[in-house]
Amino acid sequence: MGCCMIVYDGEFIIGEDSFDEMSLNKTESIMCQGNGYICVRAYAEEKYPLRVVNTFIAGTFNKYFDEVTELPNVADAFSLDIFIEGVRFFLTRENVSDYNKSLNLKTGELVRSFKFRSCDNEFEFEMRRFISADNIHLGASKIKVIPLIKSANIVVVSGIDGKVTNSGDAHFIDVMRRFYEREFIVSHTKTSQSNIDVFVNVGHRTFVDGEEIFDLPKPKMGRKSVFGEFNFEVGSELIFEKYVSYYTSIDKDVVDGQYYEILRENMKLGYEGLFLRSAEALFLKLWKNDYIEIKSKNYIDQLSLNYALYHMFVMTPAHDNRMNIGAKGLSGEGYKGHTFWDTEVFLLPRFIVQNPLAARSLLEYRYLGLDGAREKAKLNGYCGAMFPWESANPDDGEVTPKFSGVDVFSGEPAKVITGDIEIHIVADVAFGVYLYRNFTGDDDFMCRFGYEIIFETAKFWNSRLEDGDDGLLHICDVIGPDEYCEHVDDNMYTNYLAKWNMEYAIDCYNEILHKNPNLLIEIDLKTGICDVINDIKLRYEKVYISTPDEDLIINQDSSYRNLPEIDLTKYKEASLVATISQDYNMEQISKLKVSKQADVMVLFLLFGEKFSDDIKKANFDYYEPFCLHDSSLSLSSYAILANDIGYFDYGYELFSRATMIDISQEMHSCDDGVHAASYGGVWQCVVYGFAGFRMIGGVLHINPKLPEEITKLKFGFYYLGRRLEIKIENGKVDLKNISGEAVSIIVGGKLLEV
Amino acid sequence: MGCCMIVYDGEFIIGEDSFDEMSLNKTESIMCQGNGYICVRAYAEEKYPLRVVNTFIAGTFNKYFDEVTELPNVADAFSLDIFIEGVRFFLTRENVSDYNKSLNLKTGELVRSFKFRSCDNEFEFEMRRFISADNIHLGASKIKVIPLIKSANIVVVSGIDGKVTNSGDAHFIDVMRRFYEREFIVSHTKTSQSNIDVFVNVGHRTFVDGEEIFDLPKPKMGRKSVFGEFNFEVGSELIFEKYVSYYTSIDKDVVDGQYYEILRENMKLGYEGLFLRSAEALFLKLWKNDYIEIKSKNYIDQLSLNYALYHMFVMTPAHDNRMNIGAKGLSGEGYKGHTFWDTEVFLLPRFIVQNPLAARSLLEYRYLGLDGAREKAKLNGYCGAMFPWESANPDDGEVTPKFSGVDVFSGEPAKVITGDIEIHIVADVAFGVYLYRNFTGDDDFMCRFGYEIIFETAKFWNSRLEDGDDGLLHICDVIGPDEYCEHVDDNMYTNYLAKWNMEYAIDCYNEILHKNPNLLIEIDLKTGICDVINDIKLRYEKVYISTPDEDLIINQDSSYRNLPEIDLTKYKEASLVATISQDYNMEQISKLKVSKQADVMVLFLLFGEKFSDDIKKANFDYYEPFCLHDSSLSLSSYAILANDIGYFDYGYELFSRATMIDISQEMHSCDDGVHAASYGGVWQCVVYGFAGFRMIGGVLHINPKLPEEITKLKFGFYYLGRRLEIKIENGKVDLKNISGEAVSIIVGGKLLEV
Repeated sequence: MGCCMIVYDGEFIIGEDSFDEMSLNKTESIMCQGNGYICVRAYAEEKYPLRVVNTFIAGTFNKYFDEVTELPNVADAFSLDIFIEGVRFFLTRENVSDYNKSLNLKTGELVRSFKFRSCDNEFEFEMRRFISADNIHLGASKIKVIPLIKSANIVVVSGIDGKVTNSGDAHFIDVMRRFYEREFIVSHTKTSQSNIDVFVNVGHRTFVDGEEIFDLPKPKMGRKSVFGEFNFEVGSELIFEKYVSYYTSIDKDVVDGQYYEILRENMKLGYEGLFLRSAEALFLKLWKNDYIEIKSKNYIDQLSLNYALYHMFVMTPAHDNRMNIGAKGLSGEGYKGHTFWDTEVFLLPRFIVQNPLAARSLLEYRYLGLDGAREKAKLNGYCGAMFPWESANPDDGEVTPKFSGVDVFSGEPAKVITGDIEIHIVADVAFGVYLYRNFTGDDDFMCRFGYEIIFETAKFWNSRLEDGDDGLLHICDVIGPDEYCEHVDDNMYTNYLAKWNMEYAIDCYNEILHKNPNLLIEIDLKTGICDVINDIKLRYEKVYISTPDEDLIINQDSSYRNLPEIDLTKYKEASLVATISQDYNMEQISKLKVSKQADVMVLFLLFGEKFSDDIKKANFDYYEPFCLHDSSLSLSSYAILANDIGYFDYGYELFSRATMIDISQEMHSCDDGVHAASYGGVWQCVVYGFAGFRMIGGVLHINPKLPEEITKLKFGFYYLGRRLEIKIENGKVDLKNISGEAVSIIVGGKLLEV
Repeated sequence: MGCCMIVYDGEFIIGEDSFDEMSLNKTESIMCQGNGYICVRAYAEEKYPLRVVNTFIAGTFNKYFDEVTELPNVADAFSLDIFIEGVRFFLTRENVSDYNKSLNLKTGELVRSFKFRSCDNEFEFEMRRFISADNIHLGASKIKVIPLIKSANIVVVSGIDGKVTNSGDAHFIDVMRRFYEREFIVSHTKTSQSNIDVFVNVGHRTFVDGEEIFDLPKPKMGRKSVFGEFNFEVGSELIFEKYVSYYTSIDKDVVDGQYYEILRENMKLGYEGLFLRSAEALFLKLWKNDYIEIKSKNYIDQLSLNYALYHMFVMTPAHDNRMNIGAKGLSGEGYKGHTFWDTEVFLLPRFIVQNPLAARSLLEYRYLGLDGAREKAKLNGYCGAMFPWESANPDDGEVTPKFSGVDVFSGEPAKVITGDIEIHIVADVAFGVYLYRNFTGDDDFMCRFGYEIIFETAKFWNSRLEDGDDGLLHICDVIGPDEYCEHVDDNMYTNYLAKWNMEYAIDCYNEILHKNPNLLIEIDLKTGICDVINDIKLRYEKVYISTPDEDLIINQDSSYRNLPEIDLTKYKEASLVATISQDYNMEQISKLKVSKQADVMVLFLLFGEKFSDDIKKANFDYYEPFCLHDSSLSLSSYAILANDIGYFDYGYELFSRATMIDISQEMHSCDDGVHAASYGGVWQCVVYGFAGFRMIGGVLHINPKLPEEITKLKFGFYYLGRRLEIKIENGKVDLKNISGEAVSIIVGGKLLEV
């Protein structure tokens, strides 16, 4: 079996060295292209049964009957049906050679090149594609076909295919499909429930043997689809360029004129001209400011970091505060485009530090979700805002599906209860606000959005606490970050953050009371915080927090440490995650001492300054052996902690594994989309871990601890409105203030004015 | 290019001699399997991008948002994902040999057999499948794989895939998917608008190297799908049997017990046992009584007639009078499962003559549709019942889509106006009642359903007539049978049938008035016929009917003969139909002297006794050259007429072309479903044409005219409740009365008592 391999080429190119239909989905995900507005999986133009064609436009959520809201797969404009001498063109292991598929992270271009043998001819193919970083609505592809033995008849059927679904759920209703000027192909559909119009426009330019061809395509209108058929007699070369634009009725940038006319104007620049514009824009929007130089003995570290930055650009709808980042970005159907705690705890830090405007937009999304969160709290009998475990449109409230997969024993659908009891998300959002505010000093955000979030989340916790016989307040029946432990009491992470959330609300209250009493009145009208703040003050200190035992171990929850142990070797060594669920159902897993992911470790990441290194070490040593790292959020949390406590080798190993979550040789790890949060995790490993960035007491601390493999780190960042640049090399830290007034930073324990 | 060929084998086997992905859809349609309740296209178990997977259950119509009602594609239970040594099994032209796919019309079994080469092994495959004619809910498949070079690891993923759509429109909502007893796979979905529950149940039996295997499959539950994964190490032979059952909430036969438990009971018989039962049932339900022996110099005539009978069995939901026959039967998405005039004019005669119970059920469907037809009449400002051009559920009324395809010039969707103005369907239904009644003598049907249909349709026509300046009554702005003529006045076929329909209503009225006055009162309460009958009597004779001119030509409509002629050679010779629409839009075609199909000829078919042979000849000669036969209804109408008027050679040629509409070597003629009515047309060519059956003045006339090629015809039929058998051979007609009292038939002009 000649399986294909992922190839790592230089700083910016990730590739695949041969064709294997069984592995299509992997590169479709990791090589997806987009700009935060739209994202197109890197699916092949030609059809394969295992191919997954997805085009997602951020924020176009729709609800299929009684299912939960999800991001719908919009019409496919990049597939092509190519017929050579009347036979459908597609690749098999046997008819292709010199295959290479690669994504250039720097320019955003996807290229497939290969030689294809038909029964009596041979062809050189080059298929290029980009989604514009310049004009977010635009994309284009350019196919070059060179017959090598003799001339060939090549028919290309190209247009818009609206027969796509989300695994069988169709989200769109036809409004209109047609040709304009016998040449431009357009489709107008709308989502079935949310009534969002989506407009797709397609134009072509074609060249045969060096001459541009102006023949009109033969129109083909099928159900939910509209195509043009092009018929070419190709002597030396066919160039087939396809230009595509997407618009929706919720776009904030309103466009003047007919979409196809705009496309026609753009097409005058040709593929190369438009691509150049896009690559320049990608440089300005991403690489110019956000590039992180990492000199490592393993050259792949630089590539994988660039890879993470690329995807964080592609997946982030920074242009619109009604939208957030999905757990799979915009790269696949997984998790239905929903936003989780992944944003605040794993991805937000990267934006706070490198792109505060985007960070603010992501947090404004949570503010817009307050009503839905209030509604969820009310439905569950609580006060304040109970942010949903999964969110889609800000005002949708909770959208976690009720079932997923199958219970191996009963044969029934397996229940999903995270939407009911994984409540730490509420404090995670508050923590995101806190971190953003501390790092950026954005008081405007706090006044308009932040305080209200903090008060409402604190109110939720205050109402959620339960009186215990010990005179303390407990939080029972939750899922903490470690999702293999369902229905636990006093999950350390949850309790700690709940307490902190209440305490921070008190701080905020006092702050406004003194600085801006009129604002307090305004916010009180919306939140009723004044009525409840005294209660919060009285109660927050009574929240039960597990204290380290004689071995310095903190209880993850009230029962974990007493659970029976089993031999986990098989699952720890499995190349795919969650293999344990093939042997046990969730009820059984919850009764075993086994973790899906970091739990207490995440607490050490957020509030590291509150715990001694000894405690961190003891808990790392205790918990890691039971952790299967079955969540992509796990490795980076452990990696940073390992680096912090001086486990440099293991830390670097965990970091390396984290960078490889999606781009390893395991060909099915990300079939249904990339692991968005893991990219934030990789970034954190570098900036929090190696560079040692941490906010403590409202001041940035930088305490670099480079593992042996890494010899240099250099990158720019924003802090309290200033643009700074840091270089860490040879045990030295260089900090430059690029713009703005001097600012205080504690580097290696010493206060510096930069 | 090694294109595959359709192979005709003996009386009962239609096959395909090699594998070609480009031609998959052809055999999927023509080899579809079913029993009138359910029909499964003969799609390959393994996936191909061009494969069209359809399973239709009669009458489960659903409406996708604002589209017209259509028959939804239900979950796929016959696909299998087969992996050999980890590589997905599928065929290419290169890796397969000795390929044969064939359908045995007599037993209903589909068989694919071939040799498959993997990179380092070779396999013999045999894949068999049937849908039971015994238990209409049941089907099964049996896959045999023999590794030829060495043993092999074979993984089969098998279950229920609900990710199917109708070209992108999803009609089903998930209710429940699960395993029972870790072995039975079930799915329960419901249609999104009509709320019809569909239950699919799957079980397996597997044998490796001669031993039955009882390992439990590994459950895999994805979106809208549920599968079991089987893993086999195969030395000499793998046998994989899959058992499937389908039920719906509109089934008339209510089943006692859990569906999967019933399936388990059935599975005990094994594939072979169940298949035997099915083949026996198919014999009893179809071949025993309905087989028509046709001895011809072209052996294919017998096969193609058997083929037509097979499909008329598969497509006809004779079990339920809420259902009718779709224009593509149940074999494809084409025409959305809708019923047209095809039923009454082309298919019904076969059932009237050979299966009167089914014929009655098909007409009861129209009776159930009266309210919808009344509603349509009212909406259009008319009285009585205006039967819809396309119908789905009886009470849906008109369901013709408003658009189809693209206008080649404007680029806009092409309007479909048949639903508005192709009104001859109203009289076609009445004619069906008339023919059924005359042939069967079923007065019970007339009293309960028939009279009401006749009165309501006559009332429609009476209200539809327009006063002309000539003192006559006209019917303007219609489409006649020839759909290349839109917006015509006084279409001969329409006017003639309208007049006849009114006249027949008068006859019926007089009949009941004298025989059963109480019934008249009852029917009058529902129809108000008594108030309007005098008006009908006064007006029907004034309906304008074109009289033959000096050349004996009858005007197809008021304008056709004055239209400009163009050279039609190119279109007449095209292997695919409707090629003219690539050069002209409908507005332009309507202004040319060109016909899609027979128009006046159909009138000669229904009311042949009213026109002299000279007139028939003259009109045949005049109209046929302008006819592109772009409707599958056209050839048989012309063929019968040609035979009638003594154009035996041309008649036989047209007959032969009619038999080949779907089973010719043209590989795309029936991609989206078979041409249901053409099978009725073929049957009519034989029984109406060659055997010369015709009802004239309420008496059966038999006037055989065998073309030279055909030397013997023998078949059974029902007439006025008697079972008869006819043999035509060597210029002699043998008529036998198998059961019942003697009956009068006019054979070759002489009255016989049989």
